[in-house]
Amino acid sequence: MNRLSLTLAAALAPLGLAHAAGGEAPLAPTALQPTVLPTAADEVTFKVYYKNALRVDSSDGRTKLKIGGRIFNDWSWFSAEDALGTHEDGTEFRAARLYVSGTIDERYEFKANYDFASTKAGDGGPGFKDVYMGLKKIPVVQNIRVGHFKEPMGLEELTSSKYITFMERSLKNNLDRGRNTGLMVHGHNKAETMTFAAGVFRESDNFGKDTSNSGYAFTARVTGTPMANEDHTSLIHLGASASYRNHSDGSVRINPRPESHLAPKYIDTGTIAADSELVYGVEWASVHGPFSTQAEYAINDVDGVSGGASPAFASYYGQVSWFATGESRTYEAGEGAFGRVKPKNPWGNGGNGAWELAARYSTIDLNDDTVTGGEQTDITVGVNWYLSSFARTMFNYVNADVDGVGSADIFMIRFQIDF
Amino acid sequence: MNRLSLTLAAALAPLGLAHAAGGEAPLAPTALQPTVLPTAADEVTFKVYYKNALRVDSSDGRTKLKIGGRIFNDWSWFSAEDALGTHEDGTEFRAARLYVSGTIDERYEFKANYDFASTKAGDGGPGFKDVYMGLKKIPVVQNIRVGHFKEPMGLEELTSSKYITFMERSLKNNLDRGRNTGLMVHGHNKAETMTFAAGVFRESDNFGKDTSNSGYAFTARVTGTPMANEDHTSLIHLGASASYRNHSDGSVRINPRPESHLAPKYIDTGTIAADSELVYGVEWASVHGPFSTQAEYAINDVDGVSGGASPAFASYYGQVSWFATGESRTYEAGEGAFGRVKPKNPWGNGGNGAWELAARYSTIDLNDDTVTGGEQTDITVGVNWYLSSFARTMFNYVNADVDGVGSADIFMIRFQIDF
Amino acid sequence: MNRLSLTLAAALAPLGLAHAAGGEAPLAPTALQPTVLPTAADEVTFKVYYKNALRVDSSDGRTKLKIGGRIFNDWSWFSAEDALGTHEDGTEFRAARLYVSGTIDERYEFKANYDFASTKAGDGGPGFKDVYMGLKKIPVVQNIRVGHFKEPMGLEELTSSKYITFMERSLKNNLDRGRNTGLMVHGHNKAETMTFAAGVFRESDNFGKDTSNSGYAFTARVTGTPMANEDHTSLIHLGASASYRNHSDGSVRINPRPESHLAPKYIDTGTIAADSELVYGVEWASVHGPFSTQAEYAINDVDGVSGGASPAFASYYGQVSWFATGESRTYEAGEGAFGRVKPKNPWGNGGNGAWELAARYSTIDLNDDTVTGGEQTDITVGVNWYLSSFARTMFNYVNADVDGVGSADIFMIRFQIDF
Repeated sequence: MNRLSLTLAAALAPLGLAHAAGGEAPLAPTALQPTVLPTAADEVTFKVYYKNALRVDSSDGRTKLKIGGRIFNDWSWFSAEDALGTHEDGTEFRAARLYVSGTIDERYEFKANYDFASTKAGDGGPGFKDVYMGLKKIPVVQNIRVGHFKEPMGLEELTSSKYITFMERSLKNNLDRGRNTGLMVHGHNKAETMTFAAGVFRESDNFGKDTSNSGYAFTARVTGTPMANEDHTSLIHLGASASYRNHSDGSVRINPRPESHLAPKYIDTGTIAADSELVYGVEWASVHGPFSTQAEYAINDVDGVSGGASPAFASYYGQVSWFATGESRTYEAGEGAFGRVKPKNPWGNGGNGAWELAARYSTIDLNDDTVTGGEQTDITVGVNWYLSSFARTMFNYVNADVDGVGSADIFMIRFQIDF
Repeated sequence: MNRLSLTLAAALAPLGLAHAAGGEAPLAPTALQPTVLPTAADEVTFKVYYKNALRVDSSDGRTKLKIGGRIFNDWSWFSAEDALGTHEDGTEFRAARLYVSGTIDERYEFKANYDFASTKAGDGGPGFKDVYMGLKKIPVVQNIRVGHFKEPMGLEELTSSKYITFMERSLKNNLDRGRNTGLMVHGHNKAETMTFAAGVFRESDNFGKDTSNSGYAFTARVTGTPMANEDHTSLIHLGASASYRNHSDGSVRINPRPESHLAPKYIDTGTIAADSELVYGVEWASVHGPFSTQAEYAINDVDGVSGGASPAFASYYGQVSWFATGESRTYEAGEGAFGRVKPKNPWGNGGNGAWELAARYSTIDLNDDTVTGGEQTDITVGVNWYLSSFARTMFNYVNADVDGVGSADIFMIRFQIDF
Repeated sequence: MNRLSLTLAAALAPLGLAHAAGGEAPLAPTALQPTVLPTAADEVTFKVYYKNALRVDSSDGRTKLKIGGRIFNDWSWFSAEDALGTHEDGTEFRAARLYVSGTIDERYEFKANYDFASTKAGDGGPGFKDVYMGLKKIPVVQNIRVGHFKEPMGLEELTSSKYITFMERSLKNNLDRGRNTGLMVHGHNKAETMTFAAGVFRESDNFGKDTSNSGYAFTARVTGTPMANEDHTSLIHLGASASYRNHSDGSVRINPRPESHLAPKYIDTGTIAADSELVYGVEWASVHGPFSTQAEYAINDVDGVSGGASPAFASYYGQVSWFATGESRTYEAGEGAFGRVKPKNPWGNGGNGAWELAARYSTIDLNDDTVTGGEQTDITVGVNWYLSSFARTMFNYVNADVDGVGSADIFMIRFQIDF
């Protein structure tokens, strides 16, 4: 702190800015002696600002807090063959979250994110999303996290619902396991060309609780960008993940929605009593300026089924997207996932926002061995209007086809804001 | 930014105040060169303060955030004839809300307000209150809002529960429909002597969800102040609203509480299978210094009832109130509704707060055509002690009389704070 | 405000720091005239910082706000005799809270603290923790509080779960009544060597509601420190509390968990129809540098049981703890309870945090008069690693023994952060 700083510190004190001038040392110039001496707690100052969240950062960069949330309001209209069940047009809040998160003293982190939309019927209460604490800058493993958060499986899964290209993740996402309660280490290399994550989890309920005695799951993922330019407007992402899931007494059920949250579920393995599962998959994505491709393939091996069966279920999707307004998808290299899209000319500031066109082909086969869960293929076409970096409107048309049963046409709109 | 600003900017940077000094331009004086250069995100500064909410405002006035909530703790005692059902004295939290709201970049708005009191039994979870997003400064329609918020019907309904004169809204409020999920345009003329609002809604549950296939509701309201002085201490408010509610497969039920939330419901139309409803009403209010009057009248026409019935239910109330301590009710001209009362001499700062006396007559007739739901008349007397602009204690006595059945005497106290 | 302040005020205004410079007076030096004049609302400035919570304090010290929360993630393993019921290893969030609290204008206070972990099964929703409002600096009674908060009973109960020595409070805590909805006066003498609290409550549900018509409870507590040095590293705490609980139509049931939240309940009085209860107890604690002792004894007299029975249940515990790293337990003299432990050398700043060893003996006897609820004795050994003042990991081993039935060995880990 130079001499002028000290002078200013003294001058600012009586203005109620004493905390901004900081320092425990007695301030030198007597004429400027502050009437209220700064206390020890004042040595670090804090900056408050709004940038996609309310943020409070300490001047030493060691403590950073965020308060924010998201609201997704969806509207759906259906035209489906009767064989696929009852469809009711409607509206719902697909997400209505509030969170507080932060890094404290550089090496501690926490997040408390709750979804008031409570779309898991019957569970009540706001569902737990990310609710965890962690330590950072740990030798070898880099970061340790404990609590309720996403198991490291799948590019689509690990990309926030704020940033995914379509309103719902693909059929393949039913083989990922989303959030559970566990302990995970994770990190990336210095150049951020490679990430890793590995953890042990229990399959827990909407509040992060599990006492089912069903054992533990071990899940790991690695990703890399074999090719990437500096600002990530041109890159190739590759990833692989695997999860061994022990169920001494447990069961497996895969029962996907047709990429529409208000639609009924068309196919279903039913409950399969099983000893364990092995789920493994690979990820691909590429960005070439405004153009992007993305694909994932995964297999879910179920073992120890009574009668000696060992069914394996496969699923994959492929998608393309293009920004008519010239933006690129944003890649978070340290996470191995996609991030926030920033329109070049946001609406409300003289621009019209960003417009993205996208299409996806997605399929899952739940018929194998003794299981006849059904086979479904969805084709989705989407138009996204990013008004700004924090608000978008999504239009999705889905054609869902269940092999040998029937098909449905689904039209959906999402109004989305995050704050 | 003048020369001194730049000098200060440079000086403040090493103090951790760099963000306050802002600007992307390189700072001139070399001796004062900051060690950490301000980034682009720093060009706007933010002011944090507390005023009936925690507030964060940007220096350019384009972004404003609020974090706050309210707590209402009610206590009730009953003396009722047996014919009106079982009454149990008790206590409850009539509201326990937290919210985050804001305007971002001048033209976006959002609000996420949840009620933890969860007084809608059986629905679980914190109920959705205002949970919406919107765009502002739109040509012609002025503002567009989408999400879960109040349909534009009724002066009492559109006045916040923080500011209504009695602990509960009147019997007439049962013909208003409160919050549902929809899309609305709204605004006011430049002089704020007239407001308008019109929207399309689905009748949704406690989480803003509806898949009942019961169709859409179209609701609109206009208000005006044909007479008003500048500070609104003397004014006349007039308003009218109408709602056409399509129920292809739906039903109607009106089942009011006796202006006491812990009391049982005395009268009930029962569930009426119906094709549609038309609800329309008119509003009156006047302020004359400390004295105020308010009245509303509404009719609920139910159509397409089986057997060709077409019952219409009418309800109205009239109320008077007087501030013994000289305050006036606050009128929010841009909203066409009443707002926060500000005591001249708040308690805790040498004063005794504001004292208000009020009385209301309220009636609803649910007997018409083939429906015999009952007829009820309530007389309420209230004393409100506004300790400050954010804390009040309310005392309500209600005499509820159900025609031909019996009557109840109800005494209630509310402890209220909003923050 | 001296002359330099004014000069700076003017200089800071165009930087967006006008609010920091404050004051309604016109600013003198014309060359520095601010382009945006500070408004009346700007007269008080606010300081934002993070210290075990996000805090906003006004420069006049009259308004102070906090936003924060806590996350406790527990893992449990059991080895129990069959006679004690089914035990499943598992994980849960024992707490996942968010709160906003504050003092406004020096004489008003509020707290809104909700637990999203919702561990009270069946009640749904985030449970109410402290949800209250209050007035301060009242003659004679000092502070008045109304809402949902802890009845003044028991040192362990009134010490926050963030600061208790073991993962769960002792068996004796089942005679305390935790949080209910009521009205309380509380305070302490000037020297903070004595505290008092007395209130009237209704036994309310997870949302602070009660309409059971079961009457009121009157509860009071006094505490003192007959011996204490200035920084409270050496002290003796004594306390006593009593509660008279009227149940005209009510019942009593004591049904403790074995100091492990995921374990089943071993002993149970069953539901005892009773007219009233009298619960009274005494508290002891001592601190001698890193060494501490604590003990409580309470009796629950149940009266008006049918058949003339009048059973009394007794429970007590004693515990010792020792900081291997030299810290002392923190005593909050104004509350008569223990507070936040501050490690001398926090982890992450070159230190290893604080390590505490502790042991507890705890017993409850639910056999008396006509009631044979059972008798249980627990021995707990704990190791606490306080990484910092806001993060700790707890390891607890409990041996629970039910007289004449069987015993259980329980091992538990808690990962705890508060923010």
